[in-house]
Amino acid sequence: MSTINADPFDLDFDVASSALVFIDFQRDFVLPGGFGEELGNDTSLLLKAIPPAKDVLAKAREVGMHVLHTREGHRPDLSDCPPAKLTRGGNTFIGTDGPMGRILVRGSKGHDIVEDVYPIDGEPIIDKLGKGAFYQTDLHQILFDWGIKTLFFGGVTTEVCVQTSMREANDRGYECVVLSDCTQSYFPEFYRVTLEMIKAQGAIVGWVADSKTFIKAVD
Amino acid sequence: MSTINADPFDLDFDVASSALVFIDFQRDFVLPGGFGEELGNDTSLLLKAIPPAKDVLAKAREVGMHVLHTREGHRPDLSDCPPAKLTRGGNTFIGTDGPMGRILVRGSKGHDIVEDVYPIDGEPIIDKLGKGAFYQTDLHQILFDWGIKTLFFGGVTTEVCVQTSMREANDRGYECVVLSDCTQSYFPEFYRVTLEMIKAQGAIVGWVADSKTFIKAVD
Repeated sequence: MSTINADPFDLDFDVASSALVFIDFQRDFVLPGGFGEELGNDTSLLLKAIPPAKDVLAKAREVGMHVLHTREGHRPDLSDCPPAKLTRGGNTFIGTDGPMGRILVRGSKGHDIVEDVYPIDGEPIIDKLGKGAFYQTDLHQILFDWGIKTLFFGGVTTEVCVQTSMREANDRGYECVVLSDCTQSYFPEFYRVTLEMIKAQGAIVGWVADSKTFIKAVD
Repeated sequence: MSTINADPFDLDFDVASSALVFIDFQRDFVLPGGFGEELGNDTSLLLKAIPPAKDVLAKAREVGMHVLHTREGHRPDLSDCPPAKLTRGGNTFIGTDGPMGRILVRGSKGHDIVEDVYPIDGEPIIDKLGKGAFYQTDLHQILFDWGIKTLFFGGVTTEVCVQTSMREANDRGYECVVLSDCTQSYFPEFYRVTLEMIKAQGAIVGWVADSKTFIKAVD
């Protein structure tokens, strides 16, 4: 049994029944020259999460913790993209040609994960059609098969896909920890308040720790 | 077709393919003398949402819009309560005796909905075990059977069960509108920033309107 020094209180966990889940570290969201930047966002904010995430990933691999990665995107024919998502407020981005290929379409360069935290063999990639990593995916089944109880989250963006996935995981009965320096948002206030909301009311959604406390806890 | 004046842009909808979803207007969360207050929360903040919610509910009934209500709670034997939820940070509240009966247990007085917005015949009650109204419930199936495209949300609390349910609904392809004066939180900053996060990035989770614009739009 290990213990991580987290907010609002310490959490006991076993490496063997834990998984590291990296949410949507996709080129289009994170890299300069991608779709996120084209929409006017400052991707340098998101890039800050990569070095700590890389350290955490290396440590998880070293100690043999399970690792999974998610990507948001759709089939090339967009048949799995709800009309309410495809066109919103009169705007249609998904499936159109972006700076790194068709936007949010599986197989395009922008849809794939950045090199620094790229999955290796044995680390499933969960392709999801929404913000949450559990809806219409096999994530819950994989975690059940592995006997997972505790999830450590990193990824982007904090208030969109990371918190949505954490809320899904919390309802499903996982103990969830977000690593604060391994996640980022285009909007600093959303980043800060999302972390506050997660740990409020006695960890109503989950715990908040960071890369250093994670590495210390599993060592 | 109707149009509601909403943020970040107007939204077209049909009353016939819309539903009003009231989240967890339960005595234990909303009323003085309930479990929420016992935990040190100021329930007067939540009570502010009741009069506008009552007006919206009356209007929805008048125009024949579908209405649903949710409650968070568990079976009396707690067999549907994940261990990670039952005891968190060493504290166990669920199932113990609270000021209005066993806390978060179906059938207790505190678990039921406040009188002012109490369901009537034809308005399904969705009993959910988590924060989200879709996980392990028949809500999605009911909405599909009714041909629903648009959801209007009220209820408590904004950043916990309301936003979790909206995020689930958004991923499932519904156009979601939260009525800002029909929802409230114990934490004013969480209330404010959650509404900001919902409508950011071109309504990435959904739209924000209020009771007056709802009533005007459906009239």
